[in-house]
Amino acid sequence: MCGLHVDLYVNFMFVENSHYQSRGVSASKEEVHSAIATLDPGLYPHAFCRIFPDYLAGDPEWTCLSHADGAGTKSLLAYVYWKETGNLDVWKAIAQDALVMNLDDLLCVGAYQHFVYTSTIGRNKRWIPGEVLKALVEGTAACIEQLRTYGVDIHYVGGETADIGDLVRTIVVDGNMTVRWPKNRLITNEHIQEGDMILGLASFGQTIYEQHYNSGIGSNGLTLARHELLHKSYLQQYPEACDPQMDPALQYTGPYRLSDPVSPDGYTVGDLLLSPTRTYAPFLKSLLEEYREGVHGLIHCTGGGQTKLMRFLPAGLAAVKNHLFPLPPVFQLIRESSSASWKELFQVFNMGHRMEIITDEKHADDMIRLAETFHIQAHVVGSIVKANSEAVLQIIHPEAGVLVYP
Amino acid sequence: MCGLHVDLYVNFMFVENSHYQSRGVSASKEEVHSAIATLDPGLYPHAFCRIFPDYLAGDPEWTCLSHADGAGTKSLLAYVYWKETGNLDVWKAIAQDALVMNLDDLLCVGAYQHFVYTSTIGRNKRWIPGEVLKALVEGTAACIEQLRTYGVDIHYVGGETADIGDLVRTIVVDGNMTVRWPKNRLITNEHIQEGDMILGLASFGQTIYEQHYNSGIGSNGLTLARHELLHKSYLQQYPEACDPQMDPALQYTGPYRLSDPVSPDGYTVGDLLLSPTRTYAPFLKSLLEEYREGVHGLIHCTGGGQTKLMRFLPAGLAAVKNHLFPLPPVFQLIRESSSASWKELFQVFNMGHRMEIITDEKHADDMIRLAETFHIQAHVVGSIVKANSEAVLQIIHPEAGVLVYP
Repeated sequence: MCGLHVDLYVNFMFVENSHYQSRGVSASKEEVHSAIATLDPGLYPHAFCRIFPDYLAGDPEWTCLSHADGAGTKSLLAYVYWKETGNLDVWKAIAQDALVMNLDDLLCVGAYQHFVYTSTIGRNKRWIPGEVLKALVEGTAACIEQLRTYGVDIHYVGGETADIGDLVRTIVVDGNMTVRWPKNRLITNEHIQEGDMILGLASFGQTIYEQHYNSGIGSNGLTLARHELLHKSYLQQYPEACDPQMDPALQYTGPYRLSDPVSPDGYTVGDLLLSPTRTYAPFLKSLLEEYREGVHGLIHCTGGGQTKLMRFLPAGLAAVKNHLFPLPPVFQLIRESSSASWKELFQVFNMGHRMEIITDEKHADDMIRLAETFHIQAHVVGSIVKANSEAVLQIIHPEAGVLVYP
Repeated sequence: MCGLHVDLYVNFMFVENSHYQSRGVSASKEEVHSAIATLDPGLYPHAFCRIFPDYLAGDPEWTCLSHADGAGTKSLLAYVYWKETGNLDVWKAIAQDALVMNLDDLLCVGAYQHFVYTSTIGRNKRWIPGEVLKALVEGTAACIEQLRTYGVDIHYVGGETADIGDLVRTIVVDGNMTVRWPKNRLITNEHIQEGDMILGLASFGQTIYEQHYNSGIGSNGLTLARHELLHKSYLQQYPEACDPQMDPALQYTGPYRLSDPVSPDGYTVGDLLLSPTRTYAPFLKSLLEEYREGVHGLIHCTGGGQTKLMRFLPAGLAAVKNHLFPLPPVFQLIRESSSASWKELFQVFNMGHRMEIITDEKHADDMIRLAETFHIQAHVVGSIVKANSEAVLQIIHPEAGVLVYP
């Protein structure tokens, strides 16, 4: 969510680990929420992003939004991959991560064109040469260029590249996206109602606008995935890619190197963890142009994973998800290697779908068919019900059992 | 400048130090410039920020700009100060630094109202608790609130707070500001001409909208200032506030602790180095409303210091600065402690004025009088001349002698 966006790339194993409980996720989220509590919540309390009056052009029928987000610690994984392989293309994927983490949040309020984008890169020049900056800039431009062919116009108008090695160990890649949008075409989640279906859009596979298989990993939970999947030898090999004051027993505790093949198709751990965050923009543009009246809500399953929806439900409603996608390989891998519980995994990762459309029964099939024209798998993963207890969300899963949130 | 903004918070002593020449500033600037060379330069090549068509509202008579910048390594100095004193107010100053580094760049294209602002904070939760985030958010809001009383409206609509301790040693504080502005009220620096005066606006003193004396330090050159002024003991005391892989001989080589008083008025080193970056917005709003036709150019002396102007002069023109402000105490202190040459100091620091108005003779006195009503010292520091050699800028200074750039 925008707002002040609270996006905590923390290692969820700390929750389980008693001597790190004080660094747990709940506490830190409360801390950040408390810090930003006095800020203007915007015009629509249930909307996925904070929506404001049109401060930029003063039109009473329009609104404006400006949104900040970034690739988080996925850039660290890219750093190690690039050092191991010499392949600069991984930085183009990171550029896409930063862009899509902004774009797909804004899609959730119904906006799909006339975006303005800036990028902010903070680097340690000792480790990050100019060719990495070049790949990031080119990756951003290439991603924007491709989206333009689908009618999603993003204008890359600026940014900042700062050498701040005393502050940044390797590289931080952030972005900011601004848009105006008419009030009568907003999605505010206020129309979510009892009986609605939750349509999940697969985070994995290969859309018609992707050149390669996408693992579905997105840009959330990478600190957990990195430390729990990768081998301790990385700690010695790339000390700049960790916090030296963190207990080494909690760093890089896994069995893998990035080059290890782990899927029947020959994909390596690196391929799976560094898949760029898929955007749903081309499909959602078509969807919102054809079926906007049927879209009751849109949820981007980022920080908070499959529980993200909970924060945006109107009062008196709850959600049941009982038909999630089968775990794609990257999340199977994480599940097998991680000490995190199923309950936590669903809070950290998208686990198979990263976008949800809340709609009514009569639109669901048409929307699924439209998604399939973009080669995006879609199906009904759950439904909206009346809240009858303190549970705002139940996940019912063949392996995980019944999980109740909060 | 906006654009992709190239802002290099590098330590200029590396230029002088043979075994660090490869990390020198010129090289790194070229590197970043090369990385961003393919990006759209915008509509006006000499303008201080890249100005684009009105992508946000599509009005042919308007333009739009979105700008990213931050407090850079000044946040590190704030960290040490806060650890030493427990005074959270220093974080409010850092919030102002990030905001003003965006705002005052945008003022230079003539824009002074209807801004939208987001902040991006990346922290290491081990060192930076919630109360620091709270002070940053409150500091941003307070700064905005005060500017509103002068008719400069900035809308704080979002941001991101990420816990990324594997990437960030302590805290990075960045911001992004977006604005639309009518073409017929832009300042593009195209009207700068031979015979124009360069009016300098003091970076130090106390304006009618400041509660305390401002040292004039701004948000540039803090890496140099920090390492060359502060005492080696900080290296042991706050290892998180440095790059452990940098040669210790180059870190914290100075004589001072932050609490050392260094001015006749009792100001400490910390007071001088952590003065918040002054904004010129209240004055420039009045100036642009009364005398816009007389404003041929506006230059914010940030990265590049007194040489910043060079990048924005129309072809065939050069500048002579022969009547700079006497060095205020903070720059005297830096001059006395630093091994950097005069030539470099003028390239890193504003040295006394952080904003320049290029105007003609008939407007200069009125503008100076208007500045004085805001208690901003202003005077003619130099002039625009015909370029007659390769020198684009000469600084003629009683102590430094004649310095020729580039």
